[in-house]
Amino acid sequence: MTTLSELGTPALVVDAGALEHNLAAMAAALPGPRCRPHVKAHKTTAVARRQRAHGHAGFTCATPREAIGMAAAGLGEDLLVANEVLDPQRLEALAHLDARVTVAVDSEATIEAAARAGLRECVLDVNVGLPRCGCAPEDAGRLADEARRRGLGVRGVMGYEGHVVGLTDRAERIRQTAACMAELARAHDDVGGELVSAGGTGTYDVNELATEIQAGSYALMDLAYGELGLPFRRALSVVATVISTNLAGGYAVADCGLKALGMDHGNPAIDGATVWFCSDEHVTFSYDDPGADGGARLPSVGERVAVWPAHIDPTVAYHERMHVTEGENVVEVWPVDLRGW
Amino acid sequence: MTTLSELGTPALVVDAGALEHNLAAMAAALPGPRCRPHVKAHKTTAVARRQRAHGHAGFTCATPREAIGMAAAGLGEDLLVANEVLDPQRLEALAHLDARVTVAVDSEATIEAAARAGLRECVLDVNVGLPRCGCAPEDAGRLADEARRRGLGVRGVMGYEGHVVGLTDRAERIRQTAACMAELARAHDDVGGELVSAGGTGTYDVNELATEIQAGSYALMDLAYGELGLPFRRALSVVATVISTNLAGGYAVADCGLKALGMDHGNPAIDGATVWFCSDEHVTFSYDDPGADGGARLPSVGERVAVWPAHIDPTVAYHERMHVTEGENVVEVWPVDLRGW
Repeated sequence: MTTLSELGTPALVVDAGALEHNLAAMAAALPGPRCRPHVKAHKTTAVARRQRAHGHAGFTCATPREAIGMAAAGLGEDLLVANEVLDPQRLEALAHLDARVTVAVDSEATIEAAARAGLRECVLDVNVGLPRCGCAPEDAGRLADEARRRGLGVRGVMGYEGHVVGLTDRAERIRQTAACMAELARAHDDVGGELVSAGGTGTYDVNELATEIQAGSYALMDLAYGELGLPFRRALSVVATVISTNLAGGYAVADCGLKALGMDHGNPAIDGATVWFCSDEHVTFSYDDPGADGGARLPSVGERVAVWPAHIDPTVAYHERMHVTEGENVVEVWPVDLRGW
Repeated sequence: MTTLSELGTPALVVDAGALEHNLAAMAAALPGPRCRPHVKAHKTTAVARRQRAHGHAGFTCATPREAIGMAAAGLGEDLLVANEVLDPQRLEALAHLDARVTVAVDSEATIEAAARAGLRECVLDVNVGLPRCGCAPEDAGRLADEARRRGLGVRGVMGYEGHVVGLTDRAERIRQTAACMAELARAHDDVGGELVSAGGTGTYDVNELATEIQAGSYALMDLAYGELGLPFRRALSVVATVISTNLAGGYAVADCGLKALGMDHGNPAIDGATVWFCSDEHVTFSYDDPGADGGARLPSVGERVAVWPAHIDPTVAYHERMHVTEGENVVEVWPVDLRGW
């Protein structure tokens, strides 16, 4: 059996126990169709298969390739592409999958593209305050009628309160989520349909309107979400090898850099250490506690360190595989098979 | 022939004319062995092959996989892995390539690992001020002796003034580069050898000591280097499709996000526009000039926009291929075949 210390680095490592804890906690809070796990956070059908085993049959995808890969893995019972797609070839590929595929639309152009490609179902994507996709709530009913006129089944509405999910003050998160969902409810009144799809890991337990929550990060977690005090554990690290140390400078360098980490939320973390900066293939860091002699504590060259990404999603997208560990043992290797577009 | 408007997006696009201009400008300034192009900036053997055609036979690599891929592409005449590697399997793979491979060492542990794996040549990596890898200048001679004792040929020294290459004040860049190179010269006096390998795109014309410059970014350029007033043109963009617009908000959304862009240097740029923020698969932006009616100018849904990455290297590492364009035509497609470790 391979152990952590034998892995070529940098390597994505998933703690099997923490992942299982997270999946079980979400399935208990939002059983079955109440959660529609977002695969963009892990891009790995092996993780989705575990989420399916916990009772969630529907999944959220951000890209056509994610949906195509999910269908190929036999996980296409109910796939929501929660994003606007204009590409005729990709839309046609989605329309021809042996899977139930629903796409988000927010304009006449996206309705036209979906209908022309032969898609059969859509949801109206509604802007609830995040300056991104989604029609104005007052336009949703008219667009739903247009979609129906073009032969699309309209399953309901979606709206992502992405500007709210990361608010660390829980009371404020509750208040603002409710305000966003009032907008979505207004659209849903005009659109109809059984789905009110919204939310994320940060609002999974405070969104009172959504019939289903599009949570993704809860499975693996990251530093940003770690600050919210949610009942999910950090399950994903990048294991790196110390390749150089500098006694005079008091720092060490490990082989996990900008091409192994999503950096939009800033530097990663190393337990008990301060991260100085990352380069393409390096992270420079120093331990916070001094060594036994009162000088800088330094790891040995060759030692392994766990690097905790600030943001999971763009971290995972750099890697070809995840190594699932129990203690020091690598018990499974999962291809990150939903990368790209 | 495919045109830009037919590409599935997001897609890496290389302007053939700008790339050729950049390669020619560098080959004129630093002909043949005076430049050892760093492949980490493009991770694409097709680009390296053009650099070879411009007269540069030696290349710099950051990872074993880059060197292995270069050798497989017949570009292994003189490969410098300018980074410390401890992994025995990868070092053995390097030792068995049909290529001349030189590795960087900066400690007894890295010398031991290289010698044990059967590598034949090294350079001493010397710290010249950037808190990253590299031995202290005063330790270089002793470590070189140790490397020779372990049977490694010592080709010289390398030292990267990475904290200086981005200084926008040219006089300050010159002054600090000279100070760094004084450290490297001190080490070289003790180490010997024909190579003094240093520098990057930001110091290619101000580093007076190095026998060869490890420039990478000059080929494709990015926003950060674009501020230095160098004679290289931006050659790499990510073409994206506008998937949503919001008239009331005055913004548009295109399908190029955190998984298509290196974000450590911040947001990308769109000509004539202000980028608001990026999400996993989106960039939200607004045009700076108003529309004809005095309201917000908005693109049409389906329109293409060029997104200029803040930092090339970690951008390229997300993509499977580059599309080479002349005007609107895609004239070649190059696999980004040196990704990973």
